[in-house]
Amino acid sequence: MAGHGENARVFDTFDDVRRVIGELSGPDLAAERAVQARQRMLTKPAGSLGRLEELAAWLAAWQGREAPKLERMRIAVFAGNHGVAAQGVSAFPAAVTAQMVANFAAGGAAINQLAKMFGAELHVVALDLDRPTEDFTRAPAMSEAACVAAMRIGAEALESGLDLLVLGEMGIANTTSAAALAAALLGGSGAYWAGPGTGLDDHGVRHKATVVDRALSFHGEALRDPLEALRRLGGRELAAIAGAVVVARVAHVPVLLDGFVCCAAALVPHALRSDALAHTQIGHRSAEPGHARLLEALGKPPLLSLNMRLGEGSGAALAIPILQAAIACHDGMATFAEAGIGEG
Amino acid sequence: MAGHGENARVFDTFDDVRRVIGELSGPDLAAERAVQARQRMLTKPAGSLGRLEELAAWLAAWQGREAPKLERMRIAVFAGNHGVAAQGVSAFPAAVTAQMVANFAAGGAAINQLAKMFGAELHVVALDLDRPTEDFTRAPAMSEAACVAAMRIGAEALESGLDLLVLGEMGIANTTSAAALAAALLGGSGAYWAGPGTGLDDHGVRHKATVVDRALSFHGEALRDPLEALRRLGGRELAAIAGAVVVARVAHVPVLLDGFVCCAAALVPHALRSDALAHTQIGHRSAEPGHARLLEALGKPPLLSLNMRLGEGSGAALAIPILQAAIACHDGMATFAEAGIGEG
Repeated sequence: MAGHGENARVFDTFDDVRRVIGELSGPDLAAERAVQARQRMLTKPAGSLGRLEELAAWLAAWQGREAPKLERMRIAVFAGNHGVAAQGVSAFPAAVTAQMVANFAAGGAAINQLAKMFGAELHVVALDLDRPTEDFTRAPAMSEAACVAAMRIGAEALESGLDLLVLGEMGIANTTSAAALAAALLGGSGAYWAGPGTGLDDHGVRHKATVVDRALSFHGEALRDPLEALRRLGGRELAAIAGAVVVARVAHVPVLLDGFVCCAAALVPHALRSDALAHTQIGHRSAEPGHARLLEALGKPPLLSLNMRLGEGSGAALAIPILQAAIACHDGMATFAEAGIGEG
Repeated sequence: MAGHGENARVFDTFDDVRRVIGELSGPDLAAERAVQARQRMLTKPAGSLGRLEELAAWLAAWQGREAPKLERMRIAVFAGNHGVAAQGVSAFPAAVTAQMVANFAAGGAAINQLAKMFGAELHVVALDLDRPTEDFTRAPAMSEAACVAAMRIGAEALESGLDLLVLGEMGIANTTSAAALAAALLGGSGAYWAGPGTGLDDHGVRHKATVVDRALSFHGEALRDPLEALRRLGGRELAAIAGAVVVARVAHVPVLLDGFVCCAAALVPHALRSDALAHTQIGHRSAEPGHARLLEALGKPPLLSLNMRLGEGSGAALAIPILQAAIACHDGMATFAEAGIGEG
């Protein structure tokens, strides 16, 4: 298993990815129990902080620390361009991906404001924007080498010393890629998974569903292998997210996942190993209809549900203060004994 | 209508309360439209920030400012003791109310950590803790004078210069008061509204429901008047919250409401005037089953739903960063023109 600093070399082939996923370690149960024991002594009815209590224990379990912390947080946003954009599946032209990456660099996007507000580093990686993936309705989107290279770039987001990784994406047409990948890994037709994305009308959504169905039919049985599905249907930013999710687990860094595209990418490790997402929380449920369906299939309830559908990691970033609050209550509250309160 | 500084004198009788509620003004539609117009120019698909966009416009509408801000925020927590505690309706003894107020003063409670974290002032008001209200199963909880005095204390939380008021409460047995008030104002039996509160078992919840039913039967038709229902069933902290909700509207201060007890108190102005809560948002939906029912009746979706059930304003306080994020995105994002992005 790779330590920090070796993350970049952890994947050379799909077989390497399978091996790393096979060797993932579990939670630190002693750290989790230590947090739970303290929670029971704090001045509140047992369990009354609800998910805040669970989150403090979850952070401890996956950071491997009895005193979980959130001193260094990184929001990693991966951007990619998609050959399938040529099929007219987005309300925006493909050029907007690069324009938005420039907007991230200039500090003008929503995610810039959220990162600054919550004290997280923003790490934006544009993946070969001038070389879109192949149109996956008639060819695999990527070679295995290109897919693994993108996964490695995701892994490189795991710098040493991070306490939390928030994952996001940007890529015109990537909800079509996400819908196809969700269909491949969870079953269901294009109509079940396709949604309006950044703003398609009903006609556009129906067309998008047809595009997904064509892709499913073109690739057929090859999609049964989750990594094959990723290289055939995914964009580079989805591969990067899948790689980051896996290597975050290796590096003991808990992860907040964002909306439909981000979670569709995370389906890949999940499909290879059912507990591969145990170190992740779903930051928010987006307005994209497929996201609720995907989360139901994962059995993971979101932290927020605010009808957002922007991507960029924005919904996940907005869940950062919930984690911070969980730690603040866990660290700062008095115990019953300290406060002189009888446990009635 | 009272301006700042006159809040404390605004209520002397229930008739005064009715008059103030009758004279409440509406939102600043020009400020709301200015925010909406800017939202359409920001670098994101239209509407893709979901409730964040709505919240920025809502803050503008109720602060009466085209550039809404959250520089000075106050969390007001009102504490009261309840004669009905003698009926054995809580998992904790009544002495815990004062002990928790001491814990607030010492900085040891959950709400202290949240207030500090989000940069809000914490304003705790203990209302005659050594003089509980009457047991409302056999007498009105308060006189009109005592009820109005408590409402005035709530109004006094509206100091000049606040941009947001977050309301919370503490009071052993006050979910029984809230259940009775919800039943009086929305209909339904004790069994419909009573829940475990801080931790009753099933037997305890059934007993609590019986206590509520006895109170409803004892007070009968008198409960048709919302202010009578408040004085007969409510604790002082519920009256304070009702007063604060009303005077916040007068003072152009948007309000975040907390859980079941806080929202039950807010039912009083709502019952007197259907739009009386338009300047409020529901910070969270608590785990107390009656809260979801109450919010459904109000038609107001919560910002958070994290299975919390602590009170103290803790769930509402946790929604502060969502409002801050709404403002940060509204203020800080680039427009399409600034970023040189075509609106495809």
